[in-house]
Amino acid sequence: MSHQSALTAYIAAFVAELVHTGIKDVVVSPGSRSTPMAMVMAEHPGLNLHIHVDERSAAFFALGIAKASGRPAALLCTSGTAAANYFPAVVEARYSRVPLLVLTADRPHELRDVGAPQAIDQMDLYGKHVKWFSDMALPDESADMLRYARMVCGRAAALAIQAPAGPVHLNFPFREPLIPHLENEQLFELAERAEGFVSVTQGKRSLDQEALKRIVSELGAYENGIIVCGELDNEAFSCKVEQLAEALGYPVLADPLSQLRSEGNSGDWVVDAYDAFLRFEHAKQWLKPDVVIRFGAMPVSKALTIFLKENRDARQFVVDGGGGWLDPHALSTEMVYCDEALFCEGLLSLIDKKQPTNYAGQWLKLNSLAKAAMDAEMDRDKMNESLVYRELPELLPEGASLFVGNSMPIRDLDSFFWLNDKKINVMANRGANGIDGVVSTALGASLYGGPMYLVVGDLTFYHDMNGLLPAKLYNMDLTVIVINNNGGGIFSFLPQAGQARNFERLFGTPLDLDYTHVVEMYGGTFTRVEDWISYRDAILSAKSKRGLKVIEVVTDREENAADHRRLWAAVSREISGLGDAVE
Amino acid sequence: MSHQSALTAYIAAFVAELVHTGIKDVVVSPGSRSTPMAMVMAEHPGLNLHIHVDERSAAFFALGIAKASGRPAALLCTSGTAAANYFPAVVEARYSRVPLLVLTADRPHELRDVGAPQAIDQMDLYGKHVKWFSDMALPDESADMLRYARMVCGRAAALAIQAPAGPVHLNFPFREPLIPHLENEQLFELAERAEGFVSVTQGKRSLDQEALKRIVSELGAYENGIIVCGELDNEAFSCKVEQLAEALGYPVLADPLSQLRSEGNSGDWVVDAYDAFLRFEHAKQWLKPDVVIRFGAMPVSKALTIFLKENRDARQFVVDGGGGWLDPHALSTEMVYCDEALFCEGLLSLIDKKQPTNYAGQWLKLNSLAKAAMDAEMDRDKMNESLVYRELPELLPEGASLFVGNSMPIRDLDSFFWLNDKKINVMANRGANGIDGVVSTALGASLYGGPMYLVVGDLTFYHDMNGLLPAKLYNMDLTVIVINNNGGGIFSFLPQAGQARNFERLFGTPLDLDYTHVVEMYGGTFTRVEDWISYRDAILSAKSKRGLKVIEVVTDREENAADHRRLWAAVSREISGLGDAVE
Repeated sequence: MSHQSALTAYIAAFVAELVHTGIKDVVVSPGSRSTPMAMVMAEHPGLNLHIHVDERSAAFFALGIAKASGRPAALLCTSGTAAANYFPAVVEARYSRVPLLVLTADRPHELRDVGAPQAIDQMDLYGKHVKWFSDMALPDESADMLRYARMVCGRAAALAIQAPAGPVHLNFPFREPLIPHLENEQLFELAERAEGFVSVTQGKRSLDQEALKRIVSELGAYENGIIVCGELDNEAFSCKVEQLAEALGYPVLADPLSQLRSEGNSGDWVVDAYDAFLRFEHAKQWLKPDVVIRFGAMPVSKALTIFLKENRDARQFVVDGGGGWLDPHALSTEMVYCDEALFCEGLLSLIDKKQPTNYAGQWLKLNSLAKAAMDAEMDRDKMNESLVYRELPELLPEGASLFVGNSMPIRDLDSFFWLNDKKINVMANRGANGIDGVVSTALGASLYGGPMYLVVGDLTFYHDMNGLLPAKLYNMDLTVIVINNNGGGIFSFLPQAGQARNFERLFGTPLDLDYTHVVEMYGGTFTRVEDWISYRDAILSAKSKRGLKVIEVVTDREENAADHRRLWAAVSREISGLGDAVE
Repeated sequence: MSHQSALTAYIAAFVAELVHTGIKDVVVSPGSRSTPMAMVMAEHPGLNLHIHVDERSAAFFALGIAKASGRPAALLCTSGTAAANYFPAVVEARYSRVPLLVLTADRPHELRDVGAPQAIDQMDLYGKHVKWFSDMALPDESADMLRYARMVCGRAAALAIQAPAGPVHLNFPFREPLIPHLENEQLFELAERAEGFVSVTQGKRSLDQEALKRIVSELGAYENGIIVCGELDNEAFSCKVEQLAEALGYPVLADPLSQLRSEGNSGDWVVDAYDAFLRFEHAKQWLKPDVVIRFGAMPVSKALTIFLKENRDARQFVVDGGGGWLDPHALSTEMVYCDEALFCEGLLSLIDKKQPTNYAGQWLKLNSLAKAAMDAEMDRDKMNESLVYRELPELLPEGASLFVGNSMPIRDLDSFFWLNDKKINVMANRGANGIDGVVSTALGASLYGGPMYLVVGDLTFYHDMNGLLPAKLYNMDLTVIVINNNGGGIFSFLPQAGQARNFERLFGTPLDLDYTHVVEMYGGTFTRVEDWISYRDAILSAKSKRGLKVIEVVTDREENAADHRRLWAAVSREISGLGDAVE
């Protein structure tokens, strides 16, 4: 067998199998060692190749594709630090349970750890942050080795999807010469099992009737229950959990990433303003739960977290189809490893609908009052961060995707993006909550689903400006709302805000950047809005033109913190006005 | 003990010790969990804090500081993917043997691996790419634990410097509240061992007389020897190796990063154009060595690498003060673990000066002929990449620092930046040869040493545009020469250049970016030069004004490859013209 023939056959078998697993997107960063894989992939009509020079952004771009499409996205880069640049997105993928297939080219064994150029130790490069690492065999075209390449591909893709989903890393040593033989018209025709090497049928965790009955009986022992839904991407679940809430008579505290605030569901049981009213002792005294059923990641609200910690004696069920341990404050009394939708269905099959209790009514009433109080108090005369989010449900089109940055945007979304009747897919990178890679993740996600709107602070925007490149190169459509408060707005809410010494230098970190320049470089349109009419116009008119549209809302960090305090004070007054009870 | 008091005392002891180890620079990325360390560091008058929002660029900035200052630089970031963004620079530091002290803040033990926000598994985060990882104890102000914090600090800094130098990672779990108590005026006064906890005296590897005599005697058995110097940052060595060359009568093949081309040394024995004439069989036949002494990393020249591989029967001594294995082609017959300067000194003390041989003369003669041939052939009428480097020794000021990007710039520097009598410190990131972080490394390095000139291609410039931010925020001085050939110029020299299908898409990757915009955003001046007079003017005038100055040289990738071939053809003609011998 010739080197070139083996190289081509081995890689073609792998790539053909990749397509059989259902993977459609590969984000490729240019490089020399990865040449054979890139050239073979480019020949396959079933793959979308996205080229991205910055591997850090490339990996987040792939993460976004996988998040939005529900399928693993693949990554390909050359040897060396290129692969190290994937690390932030790999870590995010692990904790946000997003399937990624990371393919790295490597020097062959004889060029490892001997000072060869662009050769680093790629064994277990991402440590415990991938679900599986495999250093592939060198290219070989024997039938056994083609079977091996296809088997590993199928296995890796399946493992990436298996709950909890996550990243998998395959490392490919390639010897020179690196040019494959592409003249063969049957490049991807497989001699054996032409329809795919191995199909993997993935079961979901489910409970037997006995376990379900025990849980139903335990729940029956408590009067006052709540359901808490954090980030969870499981469409079947959204519908079922509302039915469960109704049947149990439990209100649903719905994090914005639970998708329960805007899925076109009834919303009758949805509580979306708990972050405001759970700041006040009065309300917390009325609302003490006996039992909590929690789904998904921990919600973003700190007020809710404190409330749950204060009610540590409540029975707490944490339901996790991924079999993890999402319980940062050791509050769970029952870990339930069961697919979340199946759990709801199972319970629903066993319980009769309860009469709504006064307790549930209190939650829903306080929720309405809090929203009304904040709504009345919102300053519609000047630009502030709260109203940016309050306006979004009305402004975004049906079926839109809304991606928000970490730090303040996700918190403000939680506080001010309320239940609405549109189907808006709300997304964020909440695995590790980084400010990195957000632009790229949103842009990747924009390939699947409705028109994408991204809300980020200026530091997050700065961090991943490189991520804007594909918008220009591939004429992608993205509307970015940059909340520019010239620095790290979240620190104005933390204890160090009171420590004047070095605050601006260490935490405020004003960058004083005029982003007009960079948006122009990437061929986008830049609109700085100074009032709410222009804000609405800018968002509405962004719908009608394709491309990169950046809308900048300039705010002031201190005024913003004061604005938030003012809104919470309005909620506090409303609650105090209720006297001793909320009937 | 109170939480705040323990937090403050423990961190202050660590920071005081950090300064005692000689570390002066800390690059800090803003974050919440790292608050206590950042706030305490900001109080210490002996530390320069550099704030950088993008942790990837921040880490390369620290790498640059360490490279240029010869001291470890420290890094500080918060928990989560912030730390993962350091990975590319950590990997580069490992392979380029640059001392870094990576300090990451972390959640305390009870918040690890339980779905807490911004918490990732930071144990051994950088795997085998750091020399030491230690998860620090929680803050504690007992005398024993203050001793522990200081001891770990001293040990970590010493280990980072110890040959081979490299990165060390300390992970600090911090509990809330995170605000230290800074009112104490004696914050950094240490109760015990006030002058520093432990001083570390580092010995260098050296050979005893017996080993030296054996090597001298072995060398004596060979007539035709060469010395090959790759990247090596050891000032004492530069001077000694020229003496050794003279004593042995061996020419010195000097990679541009050996610092031997422009250190104001005599240069009598320096061969700097081998990359050109070792491409030709004629020359290679004349120049076959019997013995090779190699110092530093493998030189960048592929022609030289092939020549050494073809002469695999030569005795090859690889001298490495770091005790590594820098021998990608398994050519070494003798690994010598000895400080490079001490090795030269040791040999010099034992040998008498030899008469110059005809063999050495051939090397030097071919070297002059090759340079003269290329010089005569260079096209001074249009912009091309070769002349950019050829002109630099004349244009740069005495004492300048010259940083070059990977891919083409380092290769072109090798080909066209010849021996000169200025002291120009030539630098590059040759640990892993990445195109990432180059702007930041150069900017960090600009803090120590003479005025910094950076030469990069457009893809490398794009990759680390975020790295330009400190130039604006801290009014730093940097001249960047961007060779803009709109894509990956190096691929035009690789075999895939012949494969028209998908070449531009996968390898050429034109970005079509007008960098004027981004340079304006960062407050720099942008000059696009169209002819050599403007090129010289731009570089000369950059000397006279402080700040960020970007000079763009627009070239064409295909024309550039043709230009290189034309220069080598001129060398080939010159060599052929010599007939059968070069006397």
